[in-house]
Amino acid sequence: MTLNRVARLVERPVGMVRRENFAIRDEPLPEPRDGEFRVRVSHISLDPAMRGWMNDVRSYVEPIKLGDVMRALAVGHVEASRHPDFREGDAVSGRFGVQQYAVSDGMGVGRVDERLAPLPTWLGGLGMPGLTAYFGLYEVANAQAGETVVVSAASGAVGQVVGQLARIKGCRAVGIAGGAEKCALLRDTFGFDAAIDYTAADLAGQLEAASPAGIDVDFENVGGAVFEAVLARMNTFGRIALCGLISTYNATRPEAGPRNIRLVLTQRLRMQGFIVFDFAPRYGEALGALAGWFKEGRLTLVEDVRDGGIDAYPDVLNLLYTSGNRGKLVLKV
Amino acid sequence: MTLNRVARLVERPVGMVRRENFAIRDEPLPEPRDGEFRVRVSHISLDPAMRGWMNDVRSYVEPIKLGDVMRALAVGHVEASRHPDFREGDAVSGRFGVQQYAVSDGMGVGRVDERLAPLPTWLGGLGMPGLTAYFGLYEVANAQAGETVVVSAASGAVGQVVGQLARIKGCRAVGIAGGAEKCALLRDTFGFDAAIDYTAADLAGQLEAASPAGIDVDFENVGGAVFEAVLARMNTFGRIALCGLISTYNATRPEAGPRNIRLVLTQRLRMQGFIVFDFAPRYGEALGALAGWFKEGRLTLVEDVRDGGIDAYPDVLNLLYTSGNRGKLVLKV
Repeated sequence: MTLNRVARLVERPVGMVRRENFAIRDEPLPEPRDGEFRVRVSHISLDPAMRGWMNDVRSYVEPIKLGDVMRALAVGHVEASRHPDFREGDAVSGRFGVQQYAVSDGMGVGRVDERLAPLPTWLGGLGMPGLTAYFGLYEVANAQAGETVVVSAASGAVGQVVGQLARIKGCRAVGIAGGAEKCALLRDTFGFDAAIDYTAADLAGQLEAASPAGIDVDFENVGGAVFEAVLARMNTFGRIALCGLISTYNATRPEAGPRNIRLVLTQRLRMQGFIVFDFAPRYGEALGALAGWFKEGRLTLVEDVRDGGIDAYPDVLNLLYTSGNRGKLVLKV
Repeated sequence: MTLNRVARLVERPVGMVRRENFAIRDEPLPEPRDGEFRVRVSHISLDPAMRGWMNDVRSYVEPIKLGDVMRALAVGHVEASRHPDFREGDAVSGRFGVQQYAVSDGMGVGRVDERLAPLPTWLGGLGMPGLTAYFGLYEVANAQAGETVVVSAASGAVGQVVGQLARIKGCRAVGIAGGAEKCALLRDTFGFDAAIDYTAADLAGQLEAASPAGIDVDFENVGGAVFEAVLARMNTFGRIALCGLISTYNATRPEAGPRNIRLVLTQRLRMQGFIVFDFAPRYGEALGALAGWFKEGRLTLVEDVRDGGIDAYPDVLNLLYTSGNRGKLVLKV
């Protein structure tokens, strides 16, 4: 008898996620009813935002309820369908959760093309992270040719796409990442114009050398000291697309904002928070562009696929917050 | 023989301004050359931004050089002219500095109409503070009818206009000020819908009661704890027009930014710094609107005119940072 391995959130983490915050267990295989189908999940997306979803605070989505399957985007194949639009064998992407099998009515589920790219890529550059990069850089930050774009967490799922989209637009792309290996990835694999290692000495000096004309756009994924250093080099009328604050997600008390927020005023900066969902009506347009560039070889996408299945979820997730991943982090089921 | 009493910045203040930071002394009366005129200054504008101009840091204007006359907007009358466009007796407004007499070539000098409003009003609601309120609220924050607008330092030069422009637009106007007297001024004189006393207990509770539908626009003049409390009640897609951070201007070390900056992300807020100068090409349009509303009695403007002349400048300026003024602060010469 086939069972469904499931990770349910049973207590809200304090600080980093721990194994005990989840009940990971076998449950009966869910059966689709009329208008539903069952997906055998092959890969689960690990996203920095997951940590926030576990908190019981006001945010852009409801907190995950205690006892619920951990929310997650995932990809897999339809293996049993009573839905008119989805057939056995279809490769699909959706919010299937941290589990081996999910039943869906098709809401928010999209078909993906395995001939164009393998399944994990549809969780990365051809999925939400790619869309986030696209709308954040081109719409929220309104990056223009000739400008200097800085992105933090630059080798990550979103950052790697931001840098390449900046280059495609004709911008100078500067990436910030932790360690020499990631910085080499930025330059050699993703084609950034400059890479900055925030774990090395003299962050301000590195930034200055990498952005001789100052910074026009900051695609902010991290927050904290790195954000402060970038703010200090923003040009007048610069834009900050606030996409993430990963350095603060596991903080056990509220962390202070940037000490140089005065520069937002004196340099007339625009700092704007955004969530990719707000652009849902335009996903098609963006995905078409991203897939086109990927096909032409102008967009290189790197995933870091980890084994271990559902049981490994808490430990693999924590790699995001300890700078342990190399590219888009994905859990193989 | 007539002399010119002048305040020159001779050392950069640390913390609050002190008398010793200035050389206040009599100098020879300046004589206009061809293409120039001399103004006898009657009133000097005291602005929160003055403290920043004294620091030797990167900002939107050059720092005042040591030895220079303290920079200030002022109004007065032309008393000797060798300029084709300015005649003896003209009432004018310009950057005349903290001194009794100024010579000008007319750059940035405007004629003002004493029949419409007395001279100090042209330094307040019909001057830069009024223009700042107009562009900050209508352009930067893009306030719309039916929205809730919160403004800090609400009885001050800019804040009093922001509240009334919000009402004119059809918004709910909520003002934050220090003390019961200022809050009464907000409600009774300026017509705010609600007034919040940040010196009283339960700032968060007061804000909640005053903004039952949340806050759509924050016209931020203060920063610090008050800003944090407002951020916590911002609605999704809210806008923050960052006009001032007066609570931090005398800080001797960098002050932390808001601890809840995460909300900019999750609520998709837009925080935008601005300086009124950026809207200079549109001053005429805005001043026409402001003067029209003033004439119709829809805009009530309150100035706090202080005696003491040039020698009183440092002490009177400090009233701004100790919440000591009631309305637009002006020094009578």
